Order: sequence, then C-alpha cells, then structure tokens
Amino acid sequence: MSSDLKSKFLQVYDSLKSELIHDPSFEFDDDSRQWIERMLDYNVPGGKLNRGLSVVDSYKLLKGEELTDDEVFLSCALGWCIEWLQAYFLVLDDIMDESHTRRGQPCWFRLPKVGMIAVNDGVVLRNHIPRILKKHFRGKAYYADLLDLFNEVEFQTASGQMIDLITTLVGEKDLSKYSLSIHRRIVQYKTSYYSFYLPVACALLMFGENLDDHVQVKNVLVEMGTYFQVQDDYLDCFGAPEVIGKIGTDIEDFKCSWLVVKALELANKEQKKLLHENYGRKDPASVAKVKELYNTLNLQGVFEDYENKSHEKLIKSIESHPSKAVQAVLKSFLGKIYKRQK
Amino acid sequence: MSSDLKSKFLQVYDSLKSELIHDPSFEFDDDSRQWIERMLDYNVPGGKLNRGLSVVDSYKLLKGEELTDDEVFLSCALGWCIEWLQAYFLVLDDIMDESHTRRGQPCWFRLPKVGMIAVNDGVVLRNHIPRILKKHFRGKAYYADLLDLFNEVEFQTASGQMIDLITTLVGEKDLSKYSLSIHRRIVQYKTSYYSFYLPVACALLMFGENLDDHVQVKNVLVEMGTYFQVQDDYLDCFGAPEVIGKIGTDIEDFKCSWLVVKALELANKEQKKLLHENYGRKDPASVAKVKELYNTLNLQGVFEDYENKSHEKLIKSIESHPSKAVQAVLKSFLGKIYKRQK
Repeated sequence: MSSDLKSKFLQVYDSLKSELIHDPSFEFDDDSRQWIERMLDYNVPGGKLNRGLSVVDSYKLLKGEELTDDEVFLSCALGWCIEWLQAYFLVLDDIMDESHTRRGQPCWFRLPKVGMIAVNDGVVLRNHIPRILKKHFRGKAYYADLLDLFNEVEFQTASGQMIDLITTLVGEKDLSKYSLSIHRRIVQYKTSYYSFYLPVACALLMFGENLDDHVQVKNVLVEMGTYFQVQDDYLDCFGAPEVIGKIGTDIEDFKCSWLVVKALELANKEQKKLLHENYGRKDPASVAKVKELYNTLNLQGVFEDYENKSHEKLIKSIESHPSKAVQAVLKSFLGKIYKRQK
Repeated sequence: MSSDLKSKFLQVYDSLKSELIHDPSFEFDDDSRQWIERMLDYNVPGGKLNRGLSVVDSYKLLKGEELTDDEVFLSCALGWCIEWLQAYFLVLDDIMDESHTRRGQPCWFRLPKVGMIAVNDGVVLRNHIPRILKKHFRGKAYYADLLDLFNEVEFQTASGQMIDLITTLVGEKDLSKYSLSIHRRIVQYKTSYYSFYLPVACALLMFGENLDDHVQVKNVLVEMGTYFQVQDDYLDCFGAPEVIGKIGTDIEDFKCSWLVVKALELANKEQKKLLHENYGRKDPASVAKVKELYNTLNLQGVFEDYENKSHEKLIKSIESHPSKAVQAVLKSFLGKIYKRQK
C-alpha cells in the first residue's frame, strides 16, 4: 500500500472528525467538543488501519482503474467506519477484560478523568458510524443495505463476544468444554465478520453489487478470518515477543485458544490431567508445564500443517470464483496474512 | 389504557424474544440462548412500559379507527424497540453510576455471574433493535427513515448523557457552572428525545408521514420532556417517598437538578455560599441545610408557577397545530403527566 494512500486516508479522518464535532443534531459547547475530539484522537486512528485501508484497496481492485476523488473519499469514509467500529469494541472490551494497555498507551478508561465515562464514550463511537453514513451515503441506492450490513456485523461481533465471555466462565469450571467447534464459532463471530468480511462487503456495496450474490466471498473471508485468528493464537505462545510487540498471556487467562483445543484433542489421559491442573493459572511454573506439553505434542508442527492446508484450501476456493477482480481482492487479503510473523 | 392492550403488548414481547433467540444470523447453543433469554426477561419488560405503549396509543389516535391485527403488531413492535433502547441505556447507566437497585431488584451487573459481561449485554440489547426492525419493516417505504430515526435519537441520548457526565465532573469543582441553559440541554438530549419524541415519531412514520413536516410536533414533545424532567427533579426532593417509590438523592449526588439551578438563580450571596458548602455532600446535616434553603426560597411555589405556565404554553402550542388527530396525540401525552405525583 502506498504511503500516499495512507496520508489521504488520514486526511479523511480529520475531515470526518470535524464534521462530527460540528454535528447539528447536537448543541456542542467547548467542553463537550473538546472531550469528543480527545476521545477520538486517543482511540480511533492509532491502530494499523488495515481494516479501513482494505476497503479502498478492495474497491480499487474491483473497479480496475483509477478512482475519482469522490470514490477515494467515500471508500476512505467507509474504511473509517470500520475503524470507528473497532475503536468502539476495543474501548468496551478493555473495560470488560480489565486491561491496562492498548496500542502502547494506557487503556482509555484507565485515564483518571475518564473512568466509567468510557462506557458512554464507547456508545458515542458506535453512534458516529450512522452519522458518517447518513451524511455521505443517504442518497445512494445502497444506503439501506449499508446500514443493514453494519448492523448485522455488529450484532454478530457482539454475539461472538458473548459466547467468548460465557465460554470462559464455563471453561474455568470445566476445561473439557473447550472444543474446535466452539473455538471456530467464537472466532467466526467475534473477529472474522468485522475484520475480514466487512471491508470487502463495503467495497462490493459501493461498487453496486448485491451482497446476496456473494455468499461465496463471505465464506472465503470468514475462513480466512479463522486462519488469521489461529495464527494469532499460535503467535501468542510461539511468536517472538520483540516481533509481535507483546507478551502473550492466553494460557494464564484461560483463553479458548486453538492451541489448548488442539492439545486437548491430542493429549492422552495423563497429559489431559496436566492441562486441567495447570491451564489458566498465573504462576510461571504452571505456564511452563503447559508450554512443555505443547512442545511434547509438537503443536508447532501441527500448526505448520494446518497453515499449509488452510492456504491450499483458500487458494482453491478463491480460484473457483468466476470474477478475476474478486479473485484479486481475496488474494490480496490472503497475501497480507499468509505466514505472517506478527 | 386498556388492560387488553397491555396484555397484547406483552404477547408481542414473547414473540419478538422468540425470534431473537432463534436469529439465523448467529449460531446459538443452549448456553447462549439461555443467557439472552434471562438477560432480556430481567432487563426489558419490567418497567412501566409507558414509552412503548404510547406508540400504539399515538398510532390509534392518528388513524382514528380500529387498527388491523397487523397494525397492532407492528406498532407494538416499534414500542418494544423503544423499551429495548431504554433497557440498553439503563444497563449501561447503572454501571456508570455504580447503582445498586433498579425497578426493585439488583442492577443486572450486580448479579455475581454477570459483572462486567453486562457491558456486552447492553451492546446486545442495542443490537436487537435493528434485528427487530429488519425482520418486520425491511419492505416498508419508511424503513430507512426508521433506521435514521433510531440512530439519530440514540446519538442525541448518548450526547446528553455525555454532557451530564462531564458537567457533574466540572460541577463538583465549581457549582456555579450549573445553569438553566445547561440543565435544559442535558434534559432535552438525555431524556426528551427518546422518551417523548421517539414514540410519536415512530407512530408518524408508520402512518406514512414525513418527519421533516413535523418539526412543530418535535418541539412540543421536547418541551414536554423538559417539563417532565423538571417534575422529576422536584419530586426527587419534595415528592412522598412512599408514592414515588424511592428516596431521592439528587442533593447528595451533586446532580444538576432544576432545583439547585433555580436556587442558585434566586439566592443572595450568603445563601449561595451555603449551597457551595453543602451541595453534593452525603452527610444528612448538609442535605438538611440545602432543603431548608429550598424552603426559604419557596421553591415549591416557584415550581407550581413553572408548572402552570408550562402547561398553559404547551396547550397553546398544541392547539395551534392544524391537525386535530395530532392535537389529540399531544394532549393525550400531556394529560398523562400534568400534575403527576409520581
């Protein structure tokens, strides 16, 4: 991706922010305008922006020629709606998980003057999305479809978050509840829809497509999202902390990770007992025992095998799609994540 | 309102709930289905249901004749969307305010197995609204307007909640920031739009009206909402606890109440000093001093005067409306709250 595009994308952020803090549907005063501006700058633009930028990338590949200024602006605006959605989830997730840091700074709710006001800020972030959509897409033929899309994907993400939270509650009592099928369900709903399907679906709508005709695209992207999350689970334990930028704590946190699910599947009776006794405990000795078991079971090899098979399957699905432009969109996505180290 | 209507309304709740826990956009299992069902039953139908029922009432008055079964169902469904919106706000507000009880039972997040999962449950409640709207209104000409309406009103409510939270932060340092204009702004955005305007706007849309043609109706309802909240502030201090069902704590909680704003307006230098020293303190002696000052300043008389003038002004605005049916809708609303004791 060009640094040109990124700087254009960031320009659009400034312009959307300015519209939002002058939204005529609310009487702002200096205090409230300042609050929103700080809250947005702190929470929205500081990530990798992959989700947002990929709306623009995908739209370009679909169109196959130079975009007009208007198309660049609109695809950036849709990209930012996804970044806003992400910010909304992260602000609230950090409260629920009692996290301390996010993107190298304290979580928003940890700032002394913010605290539980962060819950409402999350709600405000979410509410900005339909404000942006109304301002820039109200007259488009696909306006209602766009609202439906964001609503459906948000619903699926919240539902995925729900089963993740409930499963961890249940799992803490009984590790054997963790299975590949529940792992797949959590990942698909909590991550794949909004991170993988949503950017491409936005581009398709803007390109005039009917999403009902693109079930195959959805399936491939959901599959890709699952593969991405399995990588994430793998890197949490086996990635280099200096490369991934954090020290993984999935074992300590009793996460329904792909690794523990695979371990449960492959373990004999004795090894299962070891997992039950040590998984989800904070003390380094327990964590080390779990990691040792992962090595004994050769989970690195199992993962490599999974990665190769996934990639092969995805390529096959992609190449069976009738449109070369759509193939290009999907391959570009896959290229960005295949064998990633961070 | 007939008890017939209320029992019909509750039937529609059961039917909407059943659709939601079988929503094909998410793969439920027994645990997640049970969680949602409990969460809904605990948080959605336990209030007075005034907001929801008034959609049906308003639609009846607009139509002026018997409703078809379909119209009853649809107006009930819109009414429930408002009750769902209310539940979403209350679940999150209780977390932010660290409240203990709501509607005579512990706040949802206070239940031991719930805790911070309540944040996500609030999000799920919010997400149910577009699910209900899509299922039952997707084909209607006013579908996009309905989504826009709910989005705009939610945005206004969240913005009102934001200035309430910020103002209380600032006010705790400097009481003199509280003024009639900030009180009006908080009330208008945080309460009036969703409690007064939204039910009537839903009925108008369903009746085929364009909301742009009904700015006068919006203004009257926002005014009525302000009057309603002033009553609320008054009753918090001067209402009979056995009638209003709770013991008011606005003084202790440093609320930007209409009473303290009026007191600041009417007080001399010495009385202002007393307010600054005693408002927002938990000890009964301080609270008693504030109440004594309210009596000295004859705030009961000031309120009575406000109530009469508000009523007169509202009646005048209502009677200037060209449509008798709309007049009936607005008068029915006003009749329900004029001189209320609880």
